[in-house]
This record gives sequence, structure tokens and C-alpha cells, in this order.
Amino acid sequence: MTKQMLIGMHLGNGYGTIPGSWRAPGMDPTNYTSFDAKVRQAQAAERGKLQFLFFPDGPSHVGDLDNEPPGFNLDVMVTLAAVARETSRIGMVATGSTTFNEPFNVARHFKALDVLSHGRTGWNAVTSSAEDVAANYGRQLPPSHERYGRAHEVVHLVQALWGSWEQSAWTHDQESGRYAHADQVAPINLGGQYVASRGPLYIPPSEQGQPVIFHAGGSPNAHQFAGRWANAVIGSAFSIDDARAQREAFREGAERAGRNPDEIKFIVGLMTSLAPTKRESLDRRISLSGRVFGQRASYLGHMLGLHLDAKNLDRPLAPEQLAAARPSPADPRSVHALEVAHQGWTVRDILAHGVIDYHPVITGPAVEAANHMQEWFEADAADGFWILPDLEEGGVDDFVDGVVPILQDRGLFHHDYEGTTLREHLGAPAQYGVDPRVTQ
Amino acid sequence: MTKQMLIGMHLGNGYGTIPGSWRAPGMDPTNYTSFDAKVRQAQAAERGKLQFLFFPDGPSHVGDLDNEPPGFNLDVMVTLAAVARETSRIGMVATGSTTFNEPFNVARHFKALDVLSHGRTGWNAVTSSAEDVAANYGRQLPPSHERYGRAHEVVHLVQALWGSWEQSAWTHDQESGRYAHADQVAPINLGGQYVASRGPLYIPPSEQGQPVIFHAGGSPNAHQFAGRWANAVIGSAFSIDDARAQREAFREGAERAGRNPDEIKFIVGLMTSLAPTKRESLDRRISLSGRVFGQRASYLGHMLGLHLDAKNLDRPLAPEQLAAARPSPADPRSVHALEVAHQGWTVRDILAHGVIDYHPVITGPAVEAANHMQEWFEADAADGFWILPDLEEGGVDDFVDGVVPILQDRGLFHHDYEGTTLREHLGAPAQYGVDPRVTQ
Repeated sequence: MTKQMLIGMHLGNGYGTIPGSWRAPGMDPTNYTSFDAKVRQAQAAERGKLQFLFFPDGPSHVGDLDNEPPGFNLDVMVTLAAVARETSRIGMVATGSTTFNEPFNVARHFKALDVLSHGRTGWNAVTSSAEDVAANYGRQLPPSHERYGRAHEVVHLVQALWGSWEQSAWTHDQESGRYAHADQVAPINLGGQYVASRGPLYIPPSEQGQPVIFHAGGSPNAHQFAGRWANAVIGSAFSIDDARAQREAFREGAERAGRNPDEIKFIVGLMTSLAPTKRESLDRRISLSGRVFGQRASYLGHMLGLHLDAKNLDRPLAPEQLAAARPSPADPRSVHALEVAHQGWTVRDILAHGVIDYHPVITGPAVEAANHMQEWFEADAADGFWILPDLEEGGVDDFVDGVVPILQDRGLFHHDYEGTTLREHLGAPAQYGVDPRVTQ
Repeated sequence: MTKQMLIGMHLGNGYGTIPGSWRAPGMDPTNYTSFDAKVRQAQAAERGKLQFLFFPDGPSHVGDLDNEPPGFNLDVMVTLAAVARETSRIGMVATGSTTFNEPFNVARHFKALDVLSHGRTGWNAVTSSAEDVAANYGRQLPPSHERYGRAHEVVHLVQALWGSWEQSAWTHDQESGRYAHADQVAPINLGGQYVASRGPLYIPPSEQGQPVIFHAGGSPNAHQFAGRWANAVIGSAFSIDDARAQREAFREGAERAGRNPDEIKFIVGLMTSLAPTKRESLDRRISLSGRVFGQRASYLGHMLGLHLDAKNLDRPLAPEQLAAARPSPADPRSVHALEVAHQGWTVRDILAHGVIDYHPVITGPAVEAANHMQEWFEADAADGFWILPDLEEGGVDDFVDGVVPILQDRGLFHHDYEGTTLREHLGAPAQYGVDPRVTQ
């Protein structure tokens, strides 16, 4: 069988990932607090055989609340629990900070979620990098090397706790009266510079043993951390070359930790605004997000070395502007923005292409998303994609009904789940407790 | 309307509260990890119109694993989330430590659970008092006054975070484009000796505003803490006099904090082994727990000032033993144990009465439980009861189908939920954020 891509679906605040998504026609404005909506989107993604849902988390959520909702879920672990009972196959990955959680609490929450979900849970272990978040915990943000120092200890300790109830310990044999092999449930007695725990944890193995570790980050510290601990990386890149380099860095990180580089999957973000035509897609984005385009025009000018503002929105760039434009080396999105400008779109339409969004953006028919994914995948730029639809309500269905069948027809995406656990969905090797290769 | 009692149902490890419950006929030995079982018991309790479920937590769970399961849930917050989606009226109370949790995490988890459950969540805020638990967090247990010092700060801070998104802040008006009144979502900037947080929390009010605070503890520190913060106490007492004194101490604690003492409900534990006859109840307990009776006989002797051991199980106490017996003042259960002994039961049957259990035990038909509850309730020993069935599987139904109708017939328990939120079920006053009376 040829190699096939992995696909995850981002589920955030219940509305979507572009400004104004909460005001879209047909959008229930209370989706932010609606677990019904989350279950509905999760079931849609599962219908498309996507390998996992991704629940991102801050947690600080400070923003322009007058006009826009907070960016994330109410609480990712609560959401995961609610969704787990009403889905049966799709994996579920929630972000959890290694800096602002007690390791024992992370260990128990996530392993309980893994049991609840019958082995479909992943922990996106991140160090948190925002002062806003630190302030909610009454602290200042530690420097990166300290955060990663603690992160290594936390994941080591959490995995040791996960393995502290050995896989054969739970006999629950009513006839003999042997509930468990107590000698297979042992303290871990681990402690380092930042965290410690005696254990054991009192939770038996899940169907996949224990949750799968994800990571999100882009620094050399991240490559080392993910290379040692993670089976998947939630990544971000604006070009094939960038993505390929990042993927390679994570694979090298895995090799340095004594692992097979194929054990770590680089999953790159892709935003979608699917519609039958590009014009419809752009118009939807303009009608939802147009409010912020004046401000974005100014930043677009900055990206291109031009003066642009809200008054220029209705015109394409003039030939002399195009001639003078220089992509800013400080923003990796600038080259693509200039390419779009050269196509003759008005400034408003250039912005509607999403040239200032957090990931590459597909504006138009499903086949364009499929083409993009195929190109990146075949260029070894990614092992898969996490999809951020402009609208959670409807956008998940559009992807599942539009893009997935094309990828399946091309042999690039599976037709059904091969197994029942997230570990199987990802092709990650069996692991219980700490991988002995990475702690020598 | 005459005053009516409150009733909560303890749901722990999925089996029950007596040794050997996991081996009961018809018991699925995997109930420990079964969320289906939890949902089933929760729905049974809801059918009985019980005001709340109580999910206790350690978390250390060290025990005789060869023979007995851990004592608690896999993870109470995960359990609460799973049960919330499949019940609609019953309240749900989960224990969470103020010593071993980050306040911001407690605030977000519980408020998200309260939104998920449509206003049916309670937080049993406890300080944790076991070295076993502290060791799991890599620490030693702080002394009681420090734990309660931190507990006051944590609950204050958590309630402030709950109130930091004001009740009228969330407009989500799609037509005008006003998502929220940002000026009604404000940092709390609270910090004390132990914990701090800037906030705000980004979660709108639930149907009951915010979770209800419970407490479990018996010291003067507990009376002061619960008096200030709690609307209900998960209590434990072996006699009406003791319960009445405890209830009064909590009510006085509330008054000292400037509150109406009726705002705090004292809920006392009651274990049930219901069966058509006492003999059947005792025989069930013997067949399940008989394994530990040898050891318990020895302790029973200690309680009565006698020498008893496994060889004496089949005989009642001899007249000279009864004459010599003296209830130990160190164990409040001793008086009742001697009363049962005087009734002429064998040592095995005395033990089967549950005279060494953690709460008073009803062994026999449902009417005996109803009588006990009526007597205590009418003596002002409790505002309600939390029921610990010997078997979760079946024992919840036995209580709901046997005891509840008797209490209803006697006018002592409601026939249906008066409202939809836990706050309404408890008759607790409206509150959002910090009660201004208790922080002056």
C-alpha cells in the first residue's frame, strides 16, 4: 500500500477561525458554550474518517471581546470527555501545559480520558509561551530553557505514572478473588529539578495502553523535546520548503533520541474556506471579516514595503506599486501575498485570500484543498494536515464531503479506520510507560 | 410546605463500599473503568429525584490491591463530564483538592463542567489530609493551618475568577456585532500568601451562575472554612448527638461569616445494605466481606475491651463477656457495637451489621433506612443524607425503589425536582462571584 496522509480537525471556540465567524448565517451565536455543537462537529469529522480532533488551548483568551469571541474551548479536557461518549473511532487530542499543571493531575486526567475514550486520547504537551497565561497562574513566564527543562521532567514523570499500573496487573478475577497483582503496581519515585511524584497511578491500561504524546512548537528545544517524547507534531508552515525543513528537524530529533524517525509525524496546519467557486469563498470571507480589513491593509503594506490603508481596498495594486513591492523577510507570508497581488486582485480580495492568516489558506472549491495537500504530502513537507475551517458549523462537513472523497479517489487518504485507537490511526508503535530508548 | 430532606448518592469505584463488593453476583468486574456503569447508576439516582451525585476523590488509592479495588473514581472531573451529557436534572458534586491544584485550573474545569451540565455542578473543596496524596505531588503534607490558609485563598480566587465574566457581559448579538461587553470582563488581580491569579476567566455564567461549593471536614478549621464558603457539607457522624453538634458548628460558622445558617446544609453519610429481611442483608455482607471478618473481630474486641479473634466468629458473646465489655471512648462506634452484641448476634453477625464501617449502616428492609433518616432529620441532626450503597450495581436501584417512596409518602422527600440547577435543588441562594458578606 502506498503511504497515505493523516488528517486532523481543529475544533476551537465553536464558531471558526476567521474574524466574524460567530456572525455567519446559520451560526448559533451560543456555540461557544454548546457541547451539542462540539459533538455535532466531532461526529461529522468521524464520518470523514479523520484520524483525530484537535482541541487547542491557551489558556488566556484575552482579545477584542467586544467584537470577537475567545479563541479556544471552554476547557479542553471537559470537551474531550463530552465528545468521547458520543463518538466511537476518531482520536481526540487536547492541549495541556507542562508548565502550568501538576504532573500527577495531567497523568490522571489524560489517562482517565484515554480509558473513557477506549484508547483514542492524545496529549498535546506544550510549554506555554505567553505572559498572559503565566499571569493567570500568578507567575511570570519562565525562560524557554527552563520551560523545556520542566517539560522533559513532566512528560517523563507522567509516562512513568501511566506505566506504573503494569499492563498485566489488573486481573479482576471474581472467582479466585484476585483483584490485581499488587506487586505489578509500583511507586515511580521520580524527581528532578522541577517536579516529583511517588505514585503509583491507580488507572489500568487503556485499549492503546496510554495516551499518545503530541507537541506544538518550532524551536530547537521543540525539536529535541518532540524528538524524544512525541509521536506527532502540530506544526505550522507557509511553504513547502519551510515545512520540509521543519519536518526534517523533528525527524532528526527523533533519531538523536534513538528512535526511528517515522515514529514522529509532522502535521501541518491548513485553513479552509471551501465554496463552489473562489469568488464565493472570497465574498464569504469579506462579508464575515471585512471589518478588520482596514487594519490588515495597513499590515499588508508593511509586508510588501508599500503604504496601504483602508482607502485602497477597492483597487488592485497599481503597476508602480507592484514594481516597488518587496516581500518583507521578517514575515514568511510576504512572498505569497505578493504573488496574489500580482494576479490583479483588489486589496480587499488579496486580504480575503487569507494572506495574513496563521496558516496557508484555501479559498475556493474542494479540489484546490486536495491539490494543495497532495502537493505538500508528495513533497515530503508533511505527514498530514490539521484542518482549520473558517466556520466550524458547516466547514467540517464541507471538508468531509468535498475534500475527503477526492483524496480517497487519489489513493492519498484511507477509506476507513484501520484500527480503533489513536495510536493505530497514527501508525505509532506500541508503548507503555516510558520508552526505554529515550531515557538512557 | 414542611421542610424536606436532601439526598445525595455516593458513586465511587463502580462496585460499592464494602469489601468484596466487586465480587458480588451480577457485578461486572470491569466496572472500575466503565463509564457506562457510572451513567447507569447516575440515571437510576435521577429517577429517584435525588438532589445530587457525589464523586469522592483521594487521590492516592493505595490499598490491598491484591484483594480489593481502589476506593475512588478514575478521575472525578472526567466522570462528571461523562455523566453530565446523559442526565438532565440531578446535581453532580466532585471532590477537588485546594492544596494540590492550581486555582486557575480548578476554576476553569469546574466552571466548564457547570456550563456542560447546565448548572448542575458542585465542587467539594477539600484540603487533602493524607501524606500518600502529598507524595504523589512530590511534597510533604503541609500542616492543617497552612492547608486551610491556602484553601481560603484558593476558593476566594476561584470564585472571583468565576465572577470575572459578569453575568450580563455575554451579548453575542449577531445583528449588532457586539460579542460581549469587554468592560464587564475584568482581571481579578488577586494574590495572597499562597496563590495568585490575574484573570479574567473567559467562561460565561452557567444556568446557576457558577458551581456550588461543598466541603468535607470536621475540625474547627473546617467549620470556619465551610461557614464562609460552602453551601453544603459532606459529613460523617455515628450518633444523632454527634451529628447535631456538628451541624450546629457549621451553622455557627456560617453565622460568624455573616450568613444565614440555613444557607449551609449538613449532609450526613448513611451506608445501606438493603434486602427484604435483615437476615438476607447480613448474609449478603458475610458472603462478600467475610474474608476480612477475622481481622475485624480482633478490632471489635479492642472496641469492647475484650479478646476476640477469628475463632470466635460463630458464637454470640458469652454473658461474662457482655458483662465485662466496656465501649472504647476512642472509637465512637463502640456504643452501638455493644448494643448489637447485647441483641445476641454471633460475632460474625455483629460484624455484618457494619459496626466498624465509616458511617451508620442499615442492614435490612428499606423501611429501616427510611426510619433512620426520619429520626435523624426530625432531630435536626442533618439536612440530608448521602447514601453509600454496599453495591453500586443494584444498590442505587434498591434505594430509589425502596426507600424513596416511603420518604415521599411520609412527606419527607420531594416528588420531583423543583428546579433545574443544583443550587435550586439545595435551596441555596443565588450567588455569582464572591459573596460580599464573607470577604469583608
